[in-house]
Parts: sequence; C-alpha cells; structure tokens
Amino acid sequence: MATLGDIGVAAAFNILSAFIFFVAFAILRLQPFNDRVYFPKWYLKGLRADPTTPGAFVRKFVNLDYRSYLRFWNWMPDALRMPEPELIDHAGLDSAVYLRIYLIGLKIFVPIAFLAWGVLVPVNWTNSTLEGTKLSNVTSSNIDKLSISNVPLGSQRFWGHIVVAYAFTFWACFVLLKEYEKVASMRLQFVASERRRPDQFTVLVRNVPPDPDESVSELVEHFFLVNHPDHYLTHQVVYNANKIAKLVKKKKSLQNWLVFYKNKYSRNSSKRPFMKTGFLGLWGDKVDAIDHHESEVKKLSEEISAERERIGNNSKSIVPAGFVSFKTRWGAAVCAQTQQCRNPTIWLTEWAPEPRDVYWENLAIPYVSLTVRRLIMGVAFFFLTFFFMIPIAFVQSLASIDGLEKAAPFLKKVVEGGFFKSFVQGFLPGIVLKIFLIFLPTILMIMAKFEGFTSLSSLERRAASRYYIFNFVNVFLGSIIAGSAFEQLDSFMNQSANEIPKTIGVAIPIKATFFITYIMVDGWAGIAGEILMLKPLIIYHLKNFFLVKTEKDREEAMDPGSLGFNTGEPRIQLYFLLGFVYATVTPIILPFIIIFFGLAYVVFRHQIINVYNQEYESAAAFWPDVHGRIVTALVISQVLLIGLLSTKSFAQSTPFLIALPVLTIWFYLFCKGRYEPAFVKYPLQEAMMKDTLERAREPNINLKGYLQSAYIHPVFKASEDNEDEEENDEKWENESVIVPTKRQSRRSTPAPSRVSGASSPSLPDVQEHPQS
Amino acid sequence: MATLGDIGVAAAFNILSAFIFFVAFAILRLQPFNDRVYFPKWYLKGLRADPTTPGAFVRKFVNLDYRSYLRFWNWMPDALRMPEPELIDHAGLDSAVYLRIYLIGLKIFVPIAFLAWGVLVPVNWTNSTLEGTKLSNVTSSNIDKLSISNVPLGSQRFWGHIVVAYAFTFWACFVLLKEYEKVASMRLQFVASERRRPDQFTVLVRNVPPDPDESVSELVEHFFLVNHPDHYLTHQVVYNANKIAKLVKKKKSLQNWLVFYKNKYSRNSSKRPFMKTGFLGLWGDKVDAIDHHESEVKKLSEEISAERERIGNNSKSIVPAGFVSFKTRWGAAVCAQTQQCRNPTIWLTEWAPEPRDVYWENLAIPYVSLTVRRLIMGVAFFFLTFFFMIPIAFVQSLASIDGLEKAAPFLKKVVEGGFFKSFVQGFLPGIVLKIFLIFLPTILMIMAKFEGFTSLSSLERRAASRYYIFNFVNVFLGSIIAGSAFEQLDSFMNQSANEIPKTIGVAIPIKATFFITYIMVDGWAGIAGEILMLKPLIIYHLKNFFLVKTEKDREEAMDPGSLGFNTGEPRIQLYFLLGFVYATVTPIILPFIIIFFGLAYVVFRHQIINVYNQEYESAAAFWPDVHGRIVTALVISQVLLIGLLSTKSFAQSTPFLIALPVLTIWFYLFCKGRYEPAFVKYPLQEAMMKDTLERAREPNINLKGYLQSAYIHPVFKASEDNEDEEENDEKWENESVIVPTKRQSRRSTPAPSRVSGASSPSLPDVQEHPQS
Repeated sequence: MATLGDIGVAAAFNILSAFIFFVAFAILRLQPFNDRVYFPKWYLKGLRADPTTPGAFVRKFVNLDYRSYLRFWNWMPDALRMPEPELIDHAGLDSAVYLRIYLIGLKIFVPIAFLAWGVLVPVNWTNSTLEGTKLSNVTSSNIDKLSISNVPLGSQRFWGHIVVAYAFTFWACFVLLKEYEKVASMRLQFVASERRRPDQFTVLVRNVPPDPDESVSELVEHFFLVNHPDHYLTHQVVYNANKIAKLVKKKKSLQNWLVFYKNKYSRNSSKRPFMKTGFLGLWGDKVDAIDHHESEVKKLSEEISAERERIGNNSKSIVPAGFVSFKTRWGAAVCAQTQQCRNPTIWLTEWAPEPRDVYWENLAIPYVSLTVRRLIMGVAFFFLTFFFMIPIAFVQSLASIDGLEKAAPFLKKVVEGGFFKSFVQGFLPGIVLKIFLIFLPTILMIMAKFEGFTSLSSLERRAASRYYIFNFVNVFLGSIIAGSAFEQLDSFMNQSANEIPKTIGVAIPIKATFFITYIMVDGWAGIAGEILMLKPLIIYHLKNFFLVKTEKDREEAMDPGSLGFNTGEPRIQLYFLLGFVYATVTPIILPFIIIFFGLAYVVFRHQIINVYNQEYESAAAFWPDVHGRIVTALVISQVLLIGLLSTKSFAQSTPFLIALPVLTIWFYLFCKGRYEPAFVKYPLQEAMMKDTLERAREPNINLKGYLQSAYIHPVFKASEDNEDEEENDEKWENESVIVPTKRQSRRSTPAPSRVSGASSPSLPDVQEHPQS
Repeated sequence: MATLGDIGVAAAFNILSAFIFFVAFAILRLQPFNDRVYFPKWYLKGLRADPTTPGAFVRKFVNLDYRSYLRFWNWMPDALRMPEPELIDHAGLDSAVYLRIYLIGLKIFVPIAFLAWGVLVPVNWTNSTLEGTKLSNVTSSNIDKLSISNVPLGSQRFWGHIVVAYAFTFWACFVLLKEYEKVASMRLQFVASERRRPDQFTVLVRNVPPDPDESVSELVEHFFLVNHPDHYLTHQVVYNANKIAKLVKKKKSLQNWLVFYKNKYSRNSSKRPFMKTGFLGLWGDKVDAIDHHESEVKKLSEEISAERERIGNNSKSIVPAGFVSFKTRWGAAVCAQTQQCRNPTIWLTEWAPEPRDVYWENLAIPYVSLTVRRLIMGVAFFFLTFFFMIPIAFVQSLASIDGLEKAAPFLKKVVEGGFFKSFVQGFLPGIVLKIFLIFLPTILMIMAKFEGFTSLSSLERRAASRYYIFNFVNVFLGSIIAGSAFEQLDSFMNQSANEIPKTIGVAIPIKATFFITYIMVDGWAGIAGEILMLKPLIIYHLKNFFLVKTEKDREEAMDPGSLGFNTGEPRIQLYFLLGFVYATVTPIILPFIIIFFGLAYVVFRHQIINVYNQEYESAAAFWPDVHGRIVTALVISQVLLIGLLSTKSFAQSTPFLIALPVLTIWFYLFCKGRYEPAFVKYPLQEAMMKDTLERAREPNINLKGYLQSAYIHPVFKASEDNEDEEENDEKWENESVIVPTKRQSRRSTPAPSRVSGASSPSLPDVQEHPQS
C-alpha cells in the first residue's frame, strides 16, 4: 500500500506538471503566431483576424509586451465570465450543456464531501482496528485510518455509514432531478427560440422498398403524397457518393502536395523539386514534382466529374433512402413519430439530423442487415471488453510494488529506492492505463459506424456508452480485482459470481490510493495538458510552414478540434463512479475529485469559448445518456456498499440498504418517463405554435426553395454553383396535386409525372439529365 | 423417487377422472334443461332459442332420444370442424389467436418429441451409470434410465445432447417466427377488414391539466382544435361514476331479492314472506319482505337519479380525461402516436380501447401517482412471489414420501402401503399446488387495477405476466429446489447465486416424475374438468329456480364466462417451459405435454365456439407477450442445460452452448423490431387507405352522430332513451371553426362558445342542465 508520503510525492509531481502546462500555455497563447491555434473559434466566426500590429516584424511573431505576461492567469476568469445564454449563442447548446456535467459534479460532491468529512472521517478515525492488525501480514497505510477499513467488524458505527449513504443518494437524486428539468427546458427553449432550420421540416426515410416500375425518387414522392397529402412538400434522394468522396479526398491531398512543392520552388527558385513516383517517394521514376502533381490533380478532376455524371445517370447510385420535407413543422413531427407502413421494416421514418450531422455512408443499410450488425458488434464488444483485461491486469499487478517484491524478491534492490518507489507507485499505473485507452475510442467509433447509425451525434453517443462500459469493466473493476487478485490471491480463488459485490467491496478501500494517483494523473495533469493543445500546435506550424500560401490555406491549416463527446463524457463518468463509490468508504478521495471537476470546468469552458469548433448541434440529445450513467454509478456504489458491509460482519444492514438501489432505479424510471420524451420527441403543440407564428410573420416564404438543397452530400455541395433548380416553387405550395404513377397497370396513361418533374432530385450537376 | 409403477397408477387415475368428466359432460350437455349452460354463446348471438319440442313435459328437461347418446363423442370433431375465418367471425380474433397458442405447442413439440425419442432416448438408455450407483444412497427409478442422469460423467455422448439442443432451438424459433408473422398479418387483416368501430377514430387523452378558467370539456376541445385543426371532430368527457355504479349494483341485487320473494309468494300464496332487516336477516324488525324490498328499490332509484343529476351539474365529477374523436382514422392514428405537449406528463394520448374494454375507474389517475403505484406494486409483487414459497416448499417436501420417511421414521408404517404411497406421490403434490394457485389470479387482477391500467385487456395482460413470473418462481423453481432441498440438503446449503443454473440443472432430472404427475392432474384431468363447467351449471340451476321469471331473467342467469387470458395463458406457458427444459434432459415427459396441448386445443375450441362470451376484442394485442414468454422459456431451458452439463464434468460444452441463449435473445429482439409494431401502432398507410375507401363508399356518413355517444359509462348507457343530442352535426364536419375561449384576459368578449355549446358533454339525462 502506498503511504501518505507516496501520495504526497505523486501529488507534488502532478501539481508541478499541471503548473508547467499552464505556464507554457500562458506564454504560448500570447504569441501572435500561435493565435490561430489558441483562438481558432473566433477566426471561424469571423470575429478575429490575423494580428496586424504595424510595429516591428518580430512583433508579428513574438509578444514583447511584458505587461501581458503579468496577467497570464487571466484566461481563467475570462473563461468563467461569459454568461450561459451568450455561451449557447456562441458555441451551441451541446457545448453549454456539456459543461453542466462538470457543474453537476461540483454540485453533488461539494456538499457530500463536507458531510463525509464532518461525519464519516471522525467515525472512521477514532477506531484502532488497523493498528492492531498492523502486526499481522495485512499491509495498510495511514490513509486507511480515514477509511471504513478502520472500523472494527460488526461495529454499530456502520449505522453512520448507512445513514450517510441515504443522505448521499437523496442529495444526488435531487441534484440530478433539478438538472434534468433544467436541461430539458433549455433544450425546448433552444429548439423553440431557434431560427428556421431544415431539420425542423425534414424527416429521414430509410428502407424504401424496391419497386420494379418506379425509381426511388418517384416512389418516395408518391408514398408521401398519398399518405401525407396535406403536408408533403418535397424530398431529396441520397446518392451513393462513397467513391466520389474518396476521389475528392485524394485530390485534396494531392493539391496539398502541389502547394508544398510550389512553396519549396518559390523559396528556392534555382532548383525545380523532383520526386519519385513509387511508394512513399522512395523509388520509381524521377519526375518533376510540380508537373507530376499538376497532371495528377487534373486527371483526378476529370475522374471526379466523370463519376459525378455516372452517379447522375445511373439510378443504381441512388440509395433507398431519402430526406422528405414537409410544409409545416407539424407535418414533419407527425411523420417522424408515426409508423408509415404495415411492414414495420420498410418506410422507416425518423427526424432528420442536422445536415452537417448526417453520416452519409450509413443511410442505405437495410433493416435485417442492421439487426445482424448489432448482434455482431455486441459480441465483438463483449470480447473486446473482457479480453482486453488480460494485459491490463498484468501491468497493474506490476505497479503494486509490494506485490511485485513478493513475486520477484530479486527485484527488491532495484525498487527499494525511496523516490523511485514513490514514482512507480504514484505515476506508472495511471500512465499504463492511459496508453491502453488512447487507441480505444477510434475502435469504438468504427464499431458504431458498422452498426449503421445515421448521424454523427448518435455515433458518438453509442461510442460513448460503449466506452463507459469498457471503462467500468477494465479501469474500475479491472484495477480493483486484478490488483487485489495479486495481493489476495488465496481469498479470491474459487469464488462464485454473487460474491462479486463482496469481493469488490472488500477491495475498494485497499485501492483508494491507486485511484487517488489515477485522478491526479488523468484528472489534474491530463486536463492541464488538454489546454496546451500540443498536437494541434505542432501540426499547425508544420502546415503553416509548408502548405500555406493564401489566407484560405491558413484557415484550413487550423485544427480547432471539437468537444469529443465519445471520449470526454465517459471519462467524466468515471469520476462520478469513483466519487459515489468512495464517498462512504474512503472520503479522502473526494477533494481530489472536486479539484478535477473544478479544473476541468474552467479548462473546457475556455476551450469551448476559444478553441473547439462544433461539428454538429444535437440540442443536448445526449443528456438522457449522461443522466442514466450517473444514476448507474449511484446504484453500483450502493450495491458495493452492501457487499462491503456484509463482509464487515454487518450483514443485518442489507435489508436497510437494499431499499436504496430499488428507490434509485425507480427514480431513474420516473425521470425517464418525465423528461426523456423532451429529448426524443417533438411535441405537436410546440410545432403548431412555431408554424402559426411563422405563418403570421412571413406569409410568403419560399420554403421549398429553402429546403430543396438542404440535404446534399458534402462532396456535391463543394461545387454547388449553378443553382437553377428553384423554379415554379411558389405555386407548388398551395396547389392540390394528383398523384401520378408509372405502374404497369396504368401504362396506357403515359403522361410524364408533372410533380416528379418539378421535384426531381436536386443534384445540381446532373440537372440536365432527367431520370424519367 | 416415483417408479414407473407409481406413474402408471397416477396416469390410470387421471385418465379415469378425465374420462368420467367427459362422459358426464357428454350426458349433461344433451339434456335440454342444461342447454343454456353448455351453449350460451349461441343464445347470446340469438341463433338458438329454448327447446320447444311439443312432446311430453319431461322431454323439455331430459333427453330421451337414445341415439343422441351414441354419438356423445361427436362434440370433438364438431369443435374442430369450424374453419378459422368463421371462428374469427363467430368469436373474435382474440379467441382464434388464443387457440393458436395450443397449436404452436403441438407444432413445436411433436417434431421435437420424435427427434428426442429417436436420438436422445437411445443415447441415454444404453448407459449403465445408474445401475452402478443404485447401491449408494442416491435414489433412482427406471424413468431415470431414459434421462440424462444415466449418462456417465464426462461422457462424449453429451455432444449428442448439445447438437439436439441446437436443433430444438432452431425449430422452435422457426415455428415462432412463422407464427408471429401469421398472427401479425391476421391482426392487420382483421383491423382492415373490419366494419367501422368507434375506437378507430378515437383517442383517449389523460392527465388533462387543471385550468382555473375553463372546464375540462372546454379545455380538451380548445387544445385539440388548436393542435389538430384539420382533424378534430368531437370529444366526450368522462364522469366519475364510481358511486352511481355502486348504487346501480346494489339496486340490481335488491331487485333480485324482490323477484325471489315474489316467486316464493306466487308458489305459496297462502303466506306473505317475511324477513328481518338486520344483518343477514338474522335479527332486527320483522317486515313484509316484498313490501320492504319494493320500498328499498324505489328509494335507491331516487338516489340514483339524484346522483345522476348531481354528476351532471357538478363540474368536479368530470375527471381530467376524455375521449377525443377525429374526422379520419389518419387523424386519430397521428394523435395516438405523437406527443402533444411540452410536458410529457400531461395531455397523454393513446389509442382508445374498445368501449366495452374501457376500465372506467382508472381514467383519472395522475402521472406521478401512477409511477408511485407501479413502484408499490412492484415491491408488493416481489414479496408475494418470494414469501409465498414458504408454505409451498413445506407441503412439497411432504409429498416426497421417501424424504418423509427419512425425516420421520415413525410414519413408515402408515405410508408404506403400496397403493396409498402411489396415490400420495402421484396425486397430492399437484392438488396442493392447484389449491394454492386458485386464489392468486384475483389478487393479481386487483394489483393490476391498482396500477392504473385503463383497459380490461391491458389489465389482463399485466396480471398474466405477473402470474407467469409467479408460476415460474413458485411452481417451477419452487418445486425443483424445495423438493430437492429435502433430499439433497447437504449439497444445497451454503450455495451462492451463480450456482443456481447448476443447482437447478442437477435437480431437473430428479423432478421429472413430479412434473409428469403435475401435467396429468392439471393438464389432463383439469382440462377435462373445464368442459364440465360444474360451477356455472350449479349456479344456473339455482338462479333458474329462485330468480327467473321472464325470458330476460333467464338470459341474465346464464354465466358463459370468458377465456380468462390472465389465468389461462400463464398456465399454458408452464407447459412450454417444462417441454423445453425436459426435451433434452428427460424426453419421456414430451408425450404427456403433447397430449395436454392436443386435449386443451379441442376442449377450448369447443368452449370458445359454444360457451365463452367475449368480454372485449383487443385484436390479439397479447401476442407479443405470448411470444416473449415462449422465448423466455427457451432461454431458461438453455441456461439450465449449461448448468446441468457443467455439473456432469462436461464444462467444455459451455462455450458451445453459450451461443444458444445469445442467438435466441437476438432472435427475440429481431422479432420485436420486425413484428411488434403491428401490435402497438397503427400504420398511417392503412389508416389512409381505409379513410379513402370509406369516403368513396359513404360520402355522406354522419360520423359525429356515430361517435358522439360511443364512450359512455355503462351505468349511463342503461337509461339511454332520450337521444336528442344529434343536432347540427352535418354542417359541423366541413365548417372551419374559430376557437372560442373563456380565459380571463378576454372576458370582455363574453359571447358564449358556439362550438362548445354544440359539442357539450353528451350525457343523456343531464342534457337539460348545460354547464356553461
């Protein structure tokens, strides 16, 4: 076991690294040539331009004003100053609500910490169990004196812990309830107060059934004209643009190289740059790099336009999905919430995500394939989660030096050195875990993509919940059981599954110090490192040097990044879990967690205001997940407390404690019924209100023109220059239409579909190749 | 353990009682004076009248035609003869689909039985494990020779069981999939082909928020006029008629007594009947019974009409719920499937149940109260389930005579008698369980009512799923573990929760004989007793003698009963569970189960055709539950097989078997996504199709008149004679309405609400007391 001294060393080390990161950040951000790295959000919003101080040339790169260095902590109050409504306006509701997760952490744990230190620490401290057992072979430290381990078996003092556990639960549920209410009303207000957005009128329809007589476009149109006659406005088909997207990406990269060589040539115009055409430029024919790239780019451009034409002409490149727009929000709300067809696996409708939120690759997956994919990914995730534990367990057990010494006595000399020992025990376990976890989010995102979610936000939510489960099994349980398994091998062997709460419960107090160091590494130094943005800084300067020629290039060289819900949120959740579990057991951990929440809140508020660029806006659709996981952590902590107390010869507490998880789960169900609909449905009353208001304000709005090309695959959007499709829209909205058809049985009436002519797919470049 | 001989005695006994029941039924049903007991369905349909053979007086009561007795088995082919479409027409879709559950049992288990007897029985039989162990203290019988117990530990023969388990699972899933598909399409066809029904146009709205300025009726009208302007047609408020319903019930009972005394007087007119007014007529003043009852009935009639008036005048007797009708099925489908209001706990809409399916008492329960009630009932059900086990376990353990002898050697003399022993072991355990279970459904129905479901069908579904869980824990697990606990006390003590599959798995083969006798008692003799209808027979004749004066009285004396989904379905599910669990373990049980399914199918088909009167028609809404429970049984059987095999020194099979529950659960989820929406939603396409058809066929239909009084509490319906509310409906449907309001802010425009005047609550008797 680590002693207080070990923790002190680790704390000093982590505080020092956090401090170094902050100082480095404070200096770097003041340099004008880093401006685009540390304030990209403002550039993207067009509110900040490159510093054009007229002074000396050096001033353009280095800040020589010593006064600004004196105020280098100022970013913290600056970050806190912006009020929430302005923040929502500036960075979107998602970001603002994301920050509230940290605030909840503070709201829950600050009072809990006071209560725990006021009640539990004295209760634990005034025993002498551990002093008695110190002589035996159980290792303990003075931190354990503050923990529940110090209370003797069967002591009546455990009633204190039970009462406090109730208080914690009620307080946490109270905060969660208030917060859910607040976020739900923020979401509704945000959606209501918002300006018109295409996704308010649009529904994504998937699994359009194949039809021998009609194209997808005609089929969609006819179906919705028949079944939503008063509300259907227009629709857009989805093209399978995966190939063209690949080509565009390749062209982009080649253009970058072209710019690179041109820059090189312009700097040193004596020598034309040459390159080899083979793999990585290592072998092959030697050619003039600029000419080669120019011809390659030209070839690709031709390929792209050929592919574009092919997509336009070939009806097979239209996937069986589409975006259907309605005349009113009411109509869209109705269509999104109802079942369209007898067969519930075709004509699936759901709210269309924001245009930038759409994950285009997944729109075409048929229903049966989706369910099979879910099964496969479920099984794959199970294996990923449980077989990943083996290496972690091994490294973790090494990190427990006492165990290591016992296992390999010949290492004793090496590790016995005081500082080295503290270093290994205080720092290494956290780092090991961290490295393991760096590659995980990418894998989980790929898995979520394979499962067929249709929006980036849902992909991230899925990846986040998987990441949370992974964290729980591997970081939390893995650290507790595996580490302890090395120490308590005898007592762990041959134990059965229902003993798990007991087994973990017993191990929890022992692993408190490990988690304290983990919090310091990941939660203190890690968060401080976040603000330094080392990777974007380096990449920006490399790009700036090699690739940037115009202002637009510089714009593209910025990499503001985004919030990363799929990695960030499960990470916070781990702190909630630790906080709840240790609140009753080893309350000394709470201040460390509170510092994490406070620090992270400031840092991420700064990042959101100045750096991150939102990828999408889901209007806080992730909140039910966040709420659910915090409640899960609460329930886990309660079950573990039951397990722990039943090993303390205090099993008579179980009937008193079993009510806690029951009530908490009921609380979860209550909140789910009460608030979750605000996040998945769109009340008709709201829709009707907005429609009525809008009709009164702008009676002549050309809605069809507005919606016609809202959902176009980004690769087509880039070349969206000839917008000639906005014709005869005005009369459209109020005329009643006769549904034309092309079915075999009516082939005798071959009049071309007037309606489908008007609303045929609006891919700009293929307008001259009508499909029918 | 029971031997083959014991089972033979039990089988003979049960077959004999079943035979006696059938013969008694065959004789009784031919007697004309029992006609209304055994063919009430036909009377209710008006297709059969009292036999009026002109012959001798005795012929009216006793059938003297000897030829009809010769054909007394004929009811069986008769029952099978009616084709399914005619059955649906005759008795409703619920009944027809309910019968399919028995058919599924046959479809699943007949092939499985052949496979099991062809493969597993030889595999098990050709071992000699049990002969070797017979000398030790393990008791076994020759039935066990056919079961998995006879295969030696670690034998490679278990691969046979694993392969067969896969075959069983795939076959069962295949049958279930086909059946789900069939039932879903039957339901949709039923709904589509049906004539117009009020519930197709109507939505039940609950939790109407209180409003200081407007009555519930006005509030509902305004809300739906605003939010469904093109579709809203009319609405009906719900009166709190609990008190009046009680009064009507009391009056009915008094009238019965009045008739009783009048009959008595008319038979013996020399003496006026007297009665005492005190408790149960035991003491108090002696009064003339006829006069007394006449005055009481009159008093009650006055009270009822006063109460009726009070309800009409008092706005507080209107509960915050209502039935809202729409002009089209499309409008109703939209409203039922969408969220209406920001706050998802008010303005809750759902499909209105059929008028006769509504459970009126529960319409007014507010949302928060509902969630609390669910919690309370959840906890109560937990206690009911787990504390009920104690008495069962005790009686069960007595029924195992071998165990009893060991426990109380002094009883040896008493129970050693051959036939007595067989009787006790073969018959008693089943009877004990049966008595325990008779009172349960009533309790579960009361619990479901307390939970606040709004239709009889959902009440029954809820009670059924609770009953199933109860059966599983107490009948299935309770019998297996408790019975075994007496025999294997040593091995059972101190075992942990994850050992449960093993523990049960081990006990399963041992309890095979118990379940065989249970099947014979409950499934053979019990089903045969069902057809005899002893209770309705006796009650009918009592009523007929004492109360019946007119033809209408005789009509009311009939008690056809109904299918009783809440008790019948869980009972069938127990057989599915036993079948799946024992199919791989002790296949000898399968023929007994198949006989049950066959017999029950014939008996219930007869009952449905001739006896039961449908209480409601839910269009087979219960099918997802049935399907889910059969799949649950399948998963349980797979888990138990894993447990059993891991105790057979064959734990290497676990990886091969673990895929089975995973695939089965996936199959369940697939079916849920694929077919369940057909049972909970109403596709807009269907609605639109029916609307269009209907508009073409009957363009001038007075829909409002049709819907105006569809949802009236049955106590008001009785006196529905003055139907004067059908006025100015014609012009209603096509005029556009301006929404009137009575809010404070507009008090300066006091014109009475024209619309609410027209559609004010349509309680017939209070028409002359308008509310506004």
